[in-house]
Order: sequence, then structure tokens, then C-alpha cells
Amino acid sequence: MREGLVSTDEQSGAPAPPTLEGNHSKVIRHAGDFTWRGVALEPYKDTTEFWKGVTRRELSGKRGESQQFHVRYFEIAPGGYSTLEKHEHEHVVIPIRGRGIVQFGCYIYEVGVGDVVYIAPSDPHQFRNPDAHPEPFGFLCIVNADRDTPQPVDGGGVCYICE
Amino acid sequence: MREGLVSTDEQSGAPAPPTLEGNHSKVIRHAGDFTWRGVALEPYKDTTEFWKGVTRRELSGKRGESQQFHVRYFEIAPGGYSTLEKHEHEHVVIPIRGRGIVQFGCYIYEVGVGDVVYIAPSDPHQFRNPDAHPEPFGFLCIVNADRDTPQPVDGGGVCYICE
Repeated sequence: MREGLVSTDEQSGAPAPPTLEGNHSKVIRHAGDFTWRGVALEPYKDTTEFWKGVTRRELSGKRGESQQFHVRYFEIAPGGYSTLEKHEHEHVVIPIRGRGIVQFGCYIYEVGVGDVVYIAPSDPHQFRNPDAHPEPFGFLCIVNADRDTPQPVDGGGVCYICE
Repeated sequence: MREGLVSTDEQSGAPAPPTLEGNHSKVIRHAGDFTWRGVALEPYKDTTEFWKGVTRRELSGKRGESQQFHVRYFEIAPGGYSTLEKHEHEHVVIPIRGRGIVQFGCYIYEVGVGDVVYIAPSDPHQFRNPDAHPEPFGFLCIVNADRDTPQPVDGGGVCYICE
């Protein structure tokens, strides 16, 4: 062990590791299988209309942290979909599990792990996991901390599938 | 294909897919090996002092997007390290490749894929990839778009290794 380093196990005077709540530096452990220690599984939305098979986990921004954005992990089961909606705030979405479909405006993409999706202000959008997909479609979704409420929209007209 | 869907290949009137520049919705493709189509490899910082073996890729926020945060991908080669520094803005860091060390205040953690690290305002911190590690340590790092300039700090005193 390098000079100046002590294990928290070796010295009774060591401080307790930082807690998950509060505006101090911290580590939230990935516990495997796209779950995190101390992070609750939540429903995607309070209402059950206009969406199916989506769960949410709040990873950063809701436990006393002060940054101007929130980081969430959403997962869509095969056959599930998020609300087709629009809002003034932007999304940055980065899939980290499986594959899924994103529709924005009249573009449709199949996306997978590591792709980066940007949803611009007021652009109608939806995320889907086709029935035939073998595993959940999971993605990080980053949004402004201060943001407007999404509004459901009707289905669009012709849509274009992009490579 | 579902009614109302057409492939961009099948209809000459289809719009071109959205470009990477501008404040419109878009997809930036992960091209494998932690590279992205159209995203340049950049040095971590303009100066070469106080850091070693770190690269940067700007994933969202620097191509006309309007959200209040930037998403970057940093990679640290084995034996490399970021500057030991502090600043008023927060970091949210999520490793997506390999394993590495994060030090904040006087805590030290080894972190891996999917862990979520929050660095609070003004907390001295550094990211390192030990010499013995077999692969690069890569992580998403999300910061406020409007943020202060980091200041290097001297090494701390006793540090505590956390599980």
C-alpha cells in the first residue's frame, strides 16, 4: 500500500464511507444486472396511460446533489414503450443494455449500447423495445434539473427509418 | 414494415438523416471500441502538466445542442492519471470500460463499469488507471455547461481506501 494510504478496516480513526444522501462526493455501486445499491426501482410515471413496461432508477441529482442535471436509468421490457410525448427540455440518452427503437420527429432508429441520442426541444419522441427482442432495453437518460412537464402527442404521419 | 413507415432507401422524397451539428434531434453512432462516428479524439487538456495518458471525446453539448450539461467520454491508459484538482462545478462519472481508481477528498475507491461517482463542489479529486491494469479505464463524465475552471491542488494527507 502506498505511503499515506490506510484501509478503513485497518484504522479505527477512519471516517465512515460517505452516505448516499447529501451534497458530498460519493460512489453508488452498480450491484450487477443493472441495479444499484441503495437505488430504488420506481415506476416510469405515476399514471399508467400511454406507456407500457418501463421502469426508472434515479442515479444522480435527487439525493442532495447540486448539479444542474439529473441522471436516470430507464429500462423497457420487450413489447414495452415510453409515452409518445414532447417537452421544451432536451434529452441525452445512452443505451447501456440491449437494443431498442427511438422515434423522434419522423425519424426512426434502432439503437444499441454506446449510441448517443439527443432529443431537441419540442421534438415528439418515443422509445420502444420490440416484442421480438430477447432482453430489456436499458438506457441512461440525462435531463436538465429544472425542466417542464412532458405533454403526450398523437402519432405522427409518415416516418422514415434511418440506418 | 408498419403502416406509415418508409425506409429512407425506398422513397426518393425521404429527408436526409439529421446531421451531427445543430440543435435538432440526432443519433451519434457508437462505432465500436469506444469510438463514435464523427466524434474527434481530443487531448484531455491543452497543457501536458499534472496529467498523463488521458484522452477526451465530446459526446453531447458542443455541436449546437442547448441542454444545460455536457457529456464527455474520457479514457485513461494503464499508468495514466487525471489532474488532482478542484472546482466549484460537480462531476457525475459513470465508468463504461475497464476499472480505475477515483480519489475524492481523502477517500479512495476502485470503480468499474456501471458505478456512479458524484464529485461535490470544491472537493479535490483525481482519476487513475494503475500500471497493472490490462485495459484502458473509460468513463462518461457529465458536467454543467456553464462551469468554472479547475484548479490543480497539492496531494492530500492520509487517504482512506473504501470498499
